[in-house]
Amino acid sequence: MSAAAHAPTVVIENFYPCIEGGRHPIKRIVHEPLDLWCDIFTDGHVVMSARLKWRLIGTRRWFESVMTPLENDRWQGQCSFEALGRWEYAVEAWADSFRGWKKTFVIRVKAGDPDVPVEAQEGARLLREGGQRARSAGATESAVQIEEVAELLTKLPPEALLDLLQSDYLQALMDTYADRSLSTTSESLRVIVERPRARFSSWYEFFPRGAEGRSDKHSTFRDCLPRLDDAKAMGFDTIYFPPIHPIGITARKGKNNTLIAYDGDVGSPWAIGGPAGGHREIEPQLGTMDDFVWLVGEAKARGLEIALDFAINCSPDHPYVKDHPDWFYQRPDGSIRYAENPPKKYQDIYPINFHCADWKNLWRELIDVVLFWVDKGVKIFRVDNPHTKPVSFWEELISTVHRKDPEIIFLAEAFTKPKMMQVLGKIGFTQSYTYFTWREDKAGLTEYAKELMQGDMRFYYRGNFWPNTPDIHPFYLQNAPASLFKLRAALAATLSSTWGMYAGYELCENKPLPGKEEYLDSEKFELKARDYNAPGNIKGFIGRLNSIRRDHPALHLYDNLSFHTADNDQVICYSKITPDNSSRILCVISLDGHHPVSTMVHLDLAALGLEAGKSFRVIDLMYGSIYTWHGADNFVSLNPSATALHIFKVEA
Amino acid sequence: MSAAAHAPTVVIENFYPCIEGGRHPIKRIVHEPLDLWCDIFTDGHVVMSARLKWRLIGTRRWFESVMTPLENDRWQGQCSFEALGRWEYAVEAWADSFRGWKKTFVIRVKAGDPDVPVEAQEGARLLREGGQRARSAGATESAVQIEEVAELLTKLPPEALLDLLQSDYLQALMDTYADRSLSTTSESLRVIVERPRARFSSWYEFFPRGAEGRSDKHSTFRDCLPRLDDAKAMGFDTIYFPPIHPIGITARKGKNNTLIAYDGDVGSPWAIGGPAGGHREIEPQLGTMDDFVWLVGEAKARGLEIALDFAINCSPDHPYVKDHPDWFYQRPDGSIRYAENPPKKYQDIYPINFHCADWKNLWRELIDVVLFWVDKGVKIFRVDNPHTKPVSFWEELISTVHRKDPEIIFLAEAFTKPKMMQVLGKIGFTQSYTYFTWREDKAGLTEYAKELMQGDMRFYYRGNFWPNTPDIHPFYLQNAPASLFKLRAALAATLSSTWGMYAGYELCENKPLPGKEEYLDSEKFELKARDYNAPGNIKGFIGRLNSIRRDHPALHLYDNLSFHTADNDQVICYSKITPDNSSRILCVISLDGHHPVSTMVHLDLAALGLEAGKSFRVIDLMYGSIYTWHGADNFVSLNPSATALHIFKVEA
Repeated sequence: MSAAAHAPTVVIENFYPCIEGGRHPIKRIVHEPLDLWCDIFTDGHVVMSARLKWRLIGTRRWFESVMTPLENDRWQGQCSFEALGRWEYAVEAWADSFRGWKKTFVIRVKAGDPDVPVEAQEGARLLREGGQRARSAGATESAVQIEEVAELLTKLPPEALLDLLQSDYLQALMDTYADRSLSTTSESLRVIVERPRARFSSWYEFFPRGAEGRSDKHSTFRDCLPRLDDAKAMGFDTIYFPPIHPIGITARKGKNNTLIAYDGDVGSPWAIGGPAGGHREIEPQLGTMDDFVWLVGEAKARGLEIALDFAINCSPDHPYVKDHPDWFYQRPDGSIRYAENPPKKYQDIYPINFHCADWKNLWRELIDVVLFWVDKGVKIFRVDNPHTKPVSFWEELISTVHRKDPEIIFLAEAFTKPKMMQVLGKIGFTQSYTYFTWREDKAGLTEYAKELMQGDMRFYYRGNFWPNTPDIHPFYLQNAPASLFKLRAALAATLSSTWGMYAGYELCENKPLPGKEEYLDSEKFELKARDYNAPGNIKGFIGRLNSIRRDHPALHLYDNLSFHTADNDQVICYSKITPDNSSRILCVISLDGHHPVSTMVHLDLAALGLEAGKSFRVIDLMYGSIYTWHGADNFVSLNPSATALHIFKVEA
Repeated sequence: MSAAAHAPTVVIENFYPCIEGGRHPIKRIVHEPLDLWCDIFTDGHVVMSARLKWRLIGTRRWFESVMTPLENDRWQGQCSFEALGRWEYAVEAWADSFRGWKKTFVIRVKAGDPDVPVEAQEGARLLREGGQRARSAGATESAVQIEEVAELLTKLPPEALLDLLQSDYLQALMDTYADRSLSTTSESLRVIVERPRARFSSWYEFFPRGAEGRSDKHSTFRDCLPRLDDAKAMGFDTIYFPPIHPIGITARKGKNNTLIAYDGDVGSPWAIGGPAGGHREIEPQLGTMDDFVWLVGEAKARGLEIALDFAINCSPDHPYVKDHPDWFYQRPDGSIRYAENPPKKYQDIYPINFHCADWKNLWRELIDVVLFWVDKGVKIFRVDNPHTKPVSFWEELISTVHRKDPEIIFLAEAFTKPKMMQVLGKIGFTQSYTYFTWREDKAGLTEYAKELMQGDMRFYYRGNFWPNTPDIHPFYLQNAPASLFKLRAALAATLSSTWGMYAGYELCENKPLPGKEEYLDSEKFELKARDYNAPGNIKGFIGRLNSIRRDHPALHLYDNLSFHTADNDQVICYSKITPDNSSRILCVISLDGHHPVSTMVHLDLAALGLEAGKSFRVIDLMYGSIYTWHGADNFVSLNPSATALHIFKVEA
């Protein structure tokens, strides 16, 4: 970085945040502040100066800000990033000769040190050099001002100059043109800077083939507008489609995941590739590419974005199988190996061999598939099972796509062991699915939300909270009442800044495949009859939730979650506030979907930006009630059949 | 590392230990085991294998050991290093095709999977490839054995082969010749491997000019043998001399650090350089280079090593000042800047400008000075005030010297802020001074010892505990009784594996310069009269301490310290044991040098390798008493005038 022909003069280390020693980037939203800390020190008794520097990778110009010493050689700096893309930042520090000289000169003058005259000359020299640097930078006026002080130092008694020398004005000039010839710059750390939707988004998933909710008719893209309008009315901003590509015929799965498909069975959209093509084509029953592009435009006109599923699953009928048999695993009998988890077999899917001899072309092709859809106007991808493909592949894919378009958002659909889930965030996935779906009680929810949003994971992992997916119908929602569907939606939508749900949730669909965390008559394998306006739906509640989210900036942030104590274990209490306290949300939510509960809550007033001993108002944004509370301890009563939760706006 | 033409297949990260993301090495003693942990995982459902690999940097051959999976993708490995020097280690891991095939094949056979015949062919293929790898490695017999199993797989019913396939013998063969063609190797981490004395040493400091303890005569190297014999009798192994170079005349300091030196004042040995030369020469009053080399030989014959002080302090009379004025700081009046901490001035010392234009020659010269003394037989250096010279300089010096001779030991004499003390350990200092000298009460001693010996510092920082130095006569030892001198020596010698004391301590010299942590009539500035056999000396006690240290391997280790509870805050209780439990030391020490104390101690039996409910013997190695204790809770009574401390050997 610093090309100076000298050895390192300063130790700069122990950065925070820092993921795997800096090998992985952290994530920010454009203009979002980044606070960072590191140790900066050098030998001897000198005065240090330090700058935080940052630039878009591949560009030359550094931005910079002044760092502040705290205690025990710890320094703090702040920056933010003004454009999307991959940035780098570093710390430059140096023993500041002018500040050091000034500090000791003042002591000398006050002590009557006989060396004052020669030290005044030394100061004049340092100032003149500063003036020269200003002049070289084209700042003639600054140069003249600095040089005038240098002249005064050689002419006037130094006692008369102490105020001038110690003025903020002179120091600011000298800071701007400081002598950095012996500075040391740290290694660079990296940041992925993304658009606001990377952090704040509300996802609604539906199968376009089921847009009309008819079991007797395969819907097309042209039939999807009512679904978009409904999602818009519920306040969602991101519409996610399961794969839209031609579905395989060989070994196609029947209803409820049975091995035999009958005529008319539509198959799983995740078995990709058929006579009509593969990952670049559209299932003919959904319409044409023009239809799709039209729908993307219609969504955009409504302020919605369509997210596609990027699922690297090939059916035996995928064109890759014929064109690139070497991309798959060969068996000794010459056949291609299908997916298995012995003794289970998945004959409708051929896994890809990512490390085959032709891997470079394979990877290039898969990356090109994503870019193909980007070219069609898709900016968000939900990636299916990324944990069953190489981590290095995703790192390559995401960075390549981001070089073309840093607006692209990738959601990792990995439900697997923690280290794999984490590393997918570290290497660049914008958002990730989480274990939220299986965190049911207060202790589990609290511990998990803290791990995600208060620990180091918050720097690289954005948990997207889903109460359900087409694959997951959690046990506690099976045959459950609407009240439980509401509270799980409220938890997802307020704990995280990004959440989503799968169509049918608003209808409180609750019938399971017996003994499994799956839906009965799953839409994955059939056209599903569904009345989207059926009585008992909670569309109004969902719409209110998303409207509250949209209107309150505290809910746009991810890492601003604080928990408060509720005496009753069936009540969870937490808050999110903006750094400037202008938006403060306090949630008090019953986890009991069946019975009324009441509790004392004990608020962490500091976390709410409230002063002890003063009263404040809490305004229920969902149901409209208003309370004036005094101090930390307050009584709350919740009833699943009426007010099962409070989402309070807090007003001091 | 792995030159394979493929993308990374495995994630290997989150190493422990790991200092600054691997930028700094950890330290080991030759043959000392290193346990390490890291996360290893890959995509999909595969069986992983992993090896820990290590080699001397600059050599080609890797040693390796098998790593073991724990839980949650955490793996553990162990290695040790068979030679001194800088080593590197890394982890290589891969999806193990044979292990994976075997696991699923057994399931298939038991489930009667119709794919068994083709999978048997697959297994035969994997075995034949293994045989081929064995053959390529010259292991013909192994190759034949593996290939025979392959043949059987194609001929016999697989049910008959399950025992053979699952045998440890076959797996060991296949592990030895595993298919690593798609392995991934982590980045390398580094280790400095040193000789045992780097960790276990007992230092005795004396001024050779005061070897005879006469104020009327400057002793020479030839007068030092009685001191060596005395140190040897007290059990010390390392004799450390303050600088032995010519002492400056200009601005020489007088007795008690006064500004005026009179005729006969010998000056501070740390003001180096005079008419007789600089850092390569010997103060003429101490004798000649031949005398010094003779003394080094005499020490060696006694099993002692002489450590020199490497103090980069130049008096105005140092040859460098004339030969290289550009190595110093120039003032505007043309004079050379002396050391200052305004308003204090140190006119007898010229600080060196380590970043002057000629810095490369300057650094080379200073490194050559160390190598010069290495050539004279010196293998241990106590480095004076390293924190006032660039950290990068020390990193360069130590690595350069270690390339020539990895036996060289460097002790950092840095008493400064924590981060600087730590980084000097990180960049290579073998041992470091500590804050032990200022840790007086139980809480302070316990917290500090835990920080050093139980936290991450134990991997790179070896604290050398000194109850005093020529510069530091701590307040609580000022005018203190012998009992306090004994207990501080016992604490230093048993808490750390490396300790030291400055001559006079065994005489309980306790007179301070009033109000300061310094000795009255400090030997730094004068020839000091001293009767090394004065009544009241504690030489016998010190000798016993060092003898106990030598005889008990538990006290040779640094990071094996455990604390136990003592109800009385004036009693500290801790233990050190070897990993194999063969040596167990339990210390119970009164911190009250004046009054008798008694207490219950509550032992952590597990930390002592003892079983609950069984009795054990504790044998006082200092005073000879023997107790049989039952369980964790035991009564101890200590008396400063008799048994002020127990150093127990524990026998189960």
